[in-house]
Amino acid sequence: MKPTHIEHLGIAVPSIEEAAPFFEFLTGSPCYAIEVVEDQKVKTAFFKVGQTKIELLEPTSEDSTIAKFIEKNGGRGGVHHVAFNVENVAEALKEAEAAGIQLIDKAPRKGAENLMIAFLHPKSTKSVLTELCEQPK
Amino acid sequence: MKPTHIEHLGIAVPSIEEAAPFFEFLTGSPCYAIEVVEDQKVKTAFFKVGQTKIELLEPTSEDSTIAKFIEKNGGRGGVHHVAFNVENVAEALKEAEAAGIQLIDKAPRKGAENLMIAFLHPKSTKSVLTELCEQPK
Repeated sequence: MKPTHIEHLGIAVPSIEEAAPFFEFLTGSPCYAIEVVEDQKVKTAFFKVGQTKIELLEPTSEDSTIAKFIEKNGGRGGVHHVAFNVENVAEALKEAEAAGIQLIDKAPRKGAENLMIAFLHPKSTKSVLTELCEQPK
Repeated sequence: MKPTHIEHLGIAVPSIEEAAPFFEFLTGSPCYAIEVVEDQKVKTAFFKVGQTKIELLEPTSEDSTIAKFIEKNGGRGGVHHVAFNVENVAEALKEAEAAGIQLIDKAPRKGAENLMIAFLHPKSTKSVLTELCEQPK
């Protein structure tokens, strides 16, 4: 696999409204997009720092995986996943599978910001939930 | 604050030897440096992806903060901290303090790779342990 850069860091927060001012301060840039991803039951907010985005993730439902992550973490948020930008997610998934890495998504699917995305299983990624992203053509 | 990019992600692992092949596969680049940081009681290993480095952190002692992080995480590793590159860490600390952010390091200190570094307290950073880094002149 040869990712070009870290596309984003997914950071779980109980409330985007409460967390956004800190991330605006930290990145020195305004939140440039807020988007609800219905099938993931999350609201997302984006900030930029160099090549990488900070993607805040607020659960929109109690059965969202982000709600469960926050609950497990004593009600606090934290880094939820790390996303690597690749030229072709389908190819990267093939490579990963051939290398014996367990996949969460067997095929690319649509994520926030119209990216094609897929997750690798943290069992195979040293407990770092890892996303692969491909920019829209 | 106006960081230029994410300098590195600190990822705790029980064993660098065991974890390195996965991160070589994931980043598509070889481990380019291994360094022991005595006062932090960690061994570090570095990989590059775009502007950002992956810094693996293996405890060299049971009382290392990384050993405690892994223990708390059920023996598994995971993302331990996120490091932002700034022009001047001392100035950035002043700005952070003025913004009411709790500091772990009141002044910059030397970290791995000869960077000057300082940590902000996760109580003030939405539970994301945040490091500021300045490149050696």
